Amino acid sequence: MPEPHPADAPTGPRQAGEGPLVIKAGGGKSLDLDAIASDVAELFNSGRAVVLVHGGAETTNEVAEQLGHPPQFVTSESGYSSRRTDRRTLEIFEMVYCGLLNKRWVEQLQRRGIPAVGLSGLDGRLFEGRRKDKLRIRVGARRLVLRDDWTGTVERVNTELLRLLLDGGYLPVLTPPGSSFNGEAVNVDGDRAAAAVAGALGASTLVYLSGAPGLLADFPDEASLISRLDVARDELTGPEAHAGLEPLMAAAQDRMKKKVLGAAEALRGGLSRVVLADGRIERPVRAALEGAGTHVVVRSSVTSHGAAEATR
Amino acid sequence: MPEPHPADAPTGPRQAGEGPLVIKAGGGKSLDLDAIASDVAELFNSGRAVVLVHGGAETTNEVAEQLGHPPQFVTSESGYSSRRTDRRTLEIFEMVYCGLLNKRWVEQLQRRGIPAVGLSGLDGRLFEGRRKDKLRIRVGARRLVLRDDWTGTVERVNTELLRLLLDGGYLPVLTPPGSSFNGEAVNVDGDRAAAAVAGALGASTLVYLSGAPGLLADFPDEASLISRLDVARDELTGPEAHAGLEPLMAAAQDRMKKKVLGAAEALRGGLSRVVLADGRIERPVRAALEGAGTHVVVRSSVTSHGAAEATR
Repeated sequence: MPEPHPADAPTGPRQAGEGPLVIKAGGGKSLDLDAIASDVAELFNSGRAVVLVHGGAETTNEVAEQLGHPPQFVTSESGYSSRRTDRRTLEIFEMVYCGLLNKRWVEQLQRRGIPAVGLSGLDGRLFEGRRKDKLRIRVGARRLVLRDDWTGTVERVNTELLRLLLDGGYLPVLTPPGSSFNGEAVNVDGDRAAAAVAGALGASTLVYLSGAPGLLADFPDEASLISRLDVARDELTGPEAHAGLEPLMAAAQDRMKKKVLGAAEALRGGLSRVVLADGRIERPVRAALEGAGTHVVVRSSVTSHGAAEATR
Repeated sequence: MPEPHPADAPTGPRQAGEGPLVIKAGGGKSLDLDAIASDVAELFNSGRAVVLVHGGAETTNEVAEQLGHPPQFVTSESGYSSRRTDRRTLEIFEMVYCGLLNKRWVEQLQRRGIPAVGLSGLDGRLFEGRRKDKLRIRVGARRLVLRDDWTGTVERVNTELLRLLLDGGYLPVLTPPGSSFNGEAVNVDGDRAAAAVAGALGASTLVYLSGAPGLLADFPDEASLISRLDVARDELTGPEAHAGLEPLMAAAQDRMKKKVLGAAEALRGGLSRVVLADGRIERPVRAALEGAGTHVVVRSSVTSHGAAEATR
């Protein structure tokens, strides 16, 4: 197992110079909300500045079914699966992410005495970026263009508002949607939004919690966990969004692809460590910081070149 | 028509000493969201500090029906109608108030370039108070106690967090639920929460916007608008929550009763003016500040005693 990162050891009172810890909790139902909230509370109480970002896809699908507007998924030209977001879907998305789940996380933390403040990326334009009103998709071999879609990509994070809250002693709990440059609500990917937040805030570490122990070389065999990938900073600059992380992208299934993309974006954004870890266990964040899960680490040597090594 | 209140004239840049304007927009579907958002944006851009509080009862009822958990209303011992809030109802309430409607208001303002930030009373415990886990109700002549209820009353407002946002140049958009002293989400009344916010922030004025021109002496005859009630500060201190405002309480129907209670609480909290005004018209807030609606005004004379006068 990799060694704990020194910056991740709990410190005393939160210090201005230290970047916060950014945690992204997925929206899968196998995650242990109680364990995550308790662990976040423990870290916060030990003096860490923490930002929690959460998902909610699984519950959104359920509520959309209940409301008679079942989810539709499309495959983008570049091969990623995403939700088709018409206006009604965006509203259901907001109900579940910003209403039900964001307030559930805030309540879980408030019950533990933590001054959590829940915000969407629309609030204060925390997550801001271009709206893709035309979505280019593929259906089999055919390429199509969908209109009336409300999705976007985070290009800018309102760090001023986040710092205002962090300096005020609050724990921000963030969720999609984001805001277009025109102030419209747009569905943005939570994993990549968390990466943008981590990069913009100069976070010490970004931890992705999901319903798996980390990245599996041989999915779904949990014994095939890839425990560490070392990558040089200059391997992160290729034209592909996941440059330098090919061994992980090759192994990633479904939603894990977005976390690998997010990891690459966070490392490009200046982080030196991203962990893909298990959100189903006790003390999941501290376990990740102590070495569990898949650690993606920027090699400190400036002379290292050559391919990234994946170790098992 | 009463004269405009000097403190309500738009000023230059927001000044630290001046209390903000607090606006409560009801949840009725007859309200003109576009007109309210444009007016709020205009006031904000003219230099006013503004806090917007919104409701959402009508939409919550619809969504609760769609989700197969229709609303139940109960009559409290003191004769007010309130929503029965079991845990499932609380979740639907959060979906609609914090998700769908809060983000709709924030988006409406963001599209007009206003740095709106949407928060519930649970976030940072903005609205904090006792949870009434036993709800004493009456059904006809019988008195019953309901358990597993998630309602409460706002006793404390986190002004520190609101000032942080106001001083940072943001426009807070607030909504129930609130937080119990244990950090549990509790359904609190939005009209009374707005009054608590206005009192705690030393607001210049509180404006209630609803689907009526103000308080009607002879409901539903809109020509019977009560345009002004003057009340002395020492008439506001009786044992009844609405002390001093009996002429209004006598005329109020249904939800208007809560606004009269809120008005009394805001005046007790130190405000000198509360306006019950029409949310269905163009420039609804400025019309209210310029004299439209029902103005409840604390008489400046310290020697005045005797009954409040209602003028038509």
